This record gives sequence, structure tokens and C-alpha cells, in this order.
Amino acid sequence: MSKPEYVRTNKTEVKRKPDRGSYDRETVHSILDEGLVAHVGIVQDETPLVIPMAYGRVEERLYLHGSAASRLLRDARDLDVCVTVTLLDGLVLARSLINHSMNYRSVVIFGKAKQVTDVGEKSAALEAVTEHIISGRVADTRKNSAKEIKSTLVLSVPINEVSAKIRFGPPNDYEEDMELDVWAGVIPIGVAIGAPEPDEISGDLMAVPDYVKKWRR
Amino acid sequence: MSKPEYVRTNKTEVKRKPDRGSYDRETVHSILDEGLVAHVGIVQDETPLVIPMAYGRVEERLYLHGSAASRLLRDARDLDVCVTVTLLDGLVLARSLINHSMNYRSVVIFGKAKQVTDVGEKSAALEAVTEHIISGRVADTRKNSAKEIKSTLVLSVPINEVSAKIRFGPPNDYEEDMELDVWAGVIPIGVAIGAPEPDEISGDLMAVPDYVKKWRR
Repeated sequence: MSKPEYVRTNKTEVKRKPDRGSYDRETVHSILDEGLVAHVGIVQDETPLVIPMAYGRVEERLYLHGSAASRLLRDARDLDVCVTVTLLDGLVLARSLINHSMNYRSVVIFGKAKQVTDVGEKSAALEAVTEHIISGRVADTRKNSAKEIKSTLVLSVPINEVSAKIRFGPPNDYEEDMELDVWAGVIPIGVAIGAPEPDEISGDLMAVPDYVKKWRR
Repeated sequence: MSKPEYVRTNKTEVKRKPDRGSYDRETVHSILDEGLVAHVGIVQDETPLVIPMAYGRVEERLYLHGSAASRLLRDARDLDVCVTVTLLDGLVLARSLINHSMNYRSVVIFGKAKQVTDVGEKSAALEAVTEHIISGRVADTRKNSAKEIKSTLVLSVPINEVSAKIRFGPPNDYEEDMELDVWAGVIPIGVAIGAPEPDEISGDLMAVPDYVKKWRR
């Protein structure tokens, strides 16, 4: 039996172009699992702040970790956050300027962020963030020491009040524009991956590990 | 003579890892000009909201245009926004888990967003957004009608209170980790571009325009 959809709230219901909205768990999870960077919004002194952060998902929980975190989020207890992950899939070129668009998949999560203080959960969360970015890496690196875990800041956000929004496919031109002498279509976009660049010491000594060579997104 | 740097404010000064911060105009412009999607934060009912939006830059002004805009931003007069553009350049794999990182270039703009109501400025702004995404496209498509321009929402944000943050290069491992038997280095990341996909009508009739074929980022 498939899991029930996320419950729609006033905040998450996609009101404009509702056919692009999705509340399906697998859809939301798949977008989160494919993304590499989350844009995390908080309110600071009554004004918005948006920070790019690394993240990892464990079931219905998102763990956030980022360099900007330490100063801004150190006191997070029940901090209202909005976490947005956007995957760009293509540029959509229509015959009219107005119908130009992008193909994308995005997820927006609203929730209360909490600092993770339990050392066990925090250690697992940090490993989840790295595994999310490159699967197989954690087993191959020096683990975090207790001191390193303590000095690091991790936020936890429940994946609960959430929706996805998706646009795909060719341009939607108006009927009256269809005979214009204009090329219309999509330029597909994805993640380009260069050849791994070993640092000075690895370069001389070591083969590139398989999980690095085969990394894709 | 090169233009003066942006003035640092309490909000834009990069306090953690200040060597990663930049207030140089050309650096900020180049990151904005390379990005395709901005993550725009606003405060709504005292909680944060982060929306992905298309944008274009004209001198020291950013124009924002996005589907989610209409409902949320329709009443924008002097709306506090935070606009963040992030370019991911690589995954940084260190010998220790704690020193894993990403290579990136990001820009964060704080400002008051205003709705653009002047039809001439709005028309130019909408063209700037499309030209920003794919140069050469505007001349090749049906222009916006006055009615289309009126029905569209464009926000204008001054590029004034702004900073860039950049991380590049190999991992920074601790001295005591350098002899670990762990591959360390960078997986470079960029924008992958697929072969243009014409829609049903263009496919049969037209050659792919040069500016589409040659599109890069």
C-alpha cells in the first residue's frame, strides 16, 4: 500500500497552476534526494535571509548543515524556516515572449528547525548529509571525533508541511501564435560532471575510487 | 578606473570565513549573470517563504519574474526581500568527514522590492529576464503586447546591499589527516546541456537557431 499524501495546508497548497502541485511523498522525496543545495529562509530582525546549505534526508526529517549556519542559527530552538530545493530541467522557448518558461522540479518545506544536540543523532545526521551528496563516501573517510561533532551545528526540520511543484514538457503557445516563424522547444539542462581532480597527494598515490568515478546526478 | 566596491553593512559583511567574502562589483555581477534561478525570500505572516524565480540584471537593478509571484507579491510596495543566487562548482572530498565541503559562488542581496508599474520599464525588464537566460532570444520571438505586459508581475530590487561568497580549490585537510589512506580531491560540477528538443511543429519545419545551438552556461 502506498503511503498517504502530505496533508495540504494553506501554506503548501499550490494555488496558481494547481496542476503543477504535488503532495505525493515519493515525488517530494525524489526531488529532495536529487538536489545538492537547499535554500533556507529564516526571519532575522523582521527581514528575510536566504542561505544556501547542504542537507540530507532521513525518512521524514531533513538535516541542514552549512557554513553560514553557525552564526545565524546557533540559538535555533523552534525557528521558523522555509527550505526550498529547486532542480532545473530545461529552458522552455515559446513563440511568444510571455510563454517562455523553465522546466523544473521544486520542493518547499515549512517547519520549525531545531538544533540537534544528541551526539548520536548528530553524528548520524552529519553522515547522512555527506552520504546524500556522495553515496559511499562516509565508509571511506575518517569519521568525526566527538569534539568535531560537538563543534558542528546541525538543524533538524520535519518534512511534514510540504509540497512539490513541477513543470515539464514543451512550450504552451497560444493557438494564434502557432504559425509564427519562430523556433520553439526545450533546451534540456542537467548537472555536468567533470573528471575528478585529485589533490596533490592523492594524485600521485591513489586510484580514484569507484563511487567518485561513477558519481552522477 | 574600476568601480568602487559595494559598501559593507552589518547584514552583508561575511563574518565567518571572511576570506571567502567579496564586495567587488564585477564579481557580484558575474555570478548574477551566470545564474539562472534566484531564490527569493520574503516574510509572510511573520514566517519565511523562499520562492525560486527567474531574473535579469540591468546595471545595478535586479528584475524578478516568476509564476509564484503573482499571488504572493501582488501588493509589493516596499517589500523586504533577500535574493540569493548560488552556483555550484564542485564537491570537495576531504580525508576527514568534517572537512568535506562544496566549491560554490553565491550572491546575497538585501533590499526593498518594488512592483514595476511603468509599462516601458516593465517591458524592458521582461525582455532583460529572457535575454539574461538566453541571449538573442528576444529579437526572435513575438514581443509582449500591452495587455500581456499589464497582466504580468515584475519586481525590481536595487543591487546595493550585497555581498558574494566564494569557495574554490582543493580540500583543506588537517595536517594530521594527510597520511590517511583516503582519496581526496574535487568532483567539478557545472551545467549540462542536452540537445535542443523542438516542439512538434518546429521539429518538422525549422532549423535550430544558432543562439539555441550555442547556448552555454
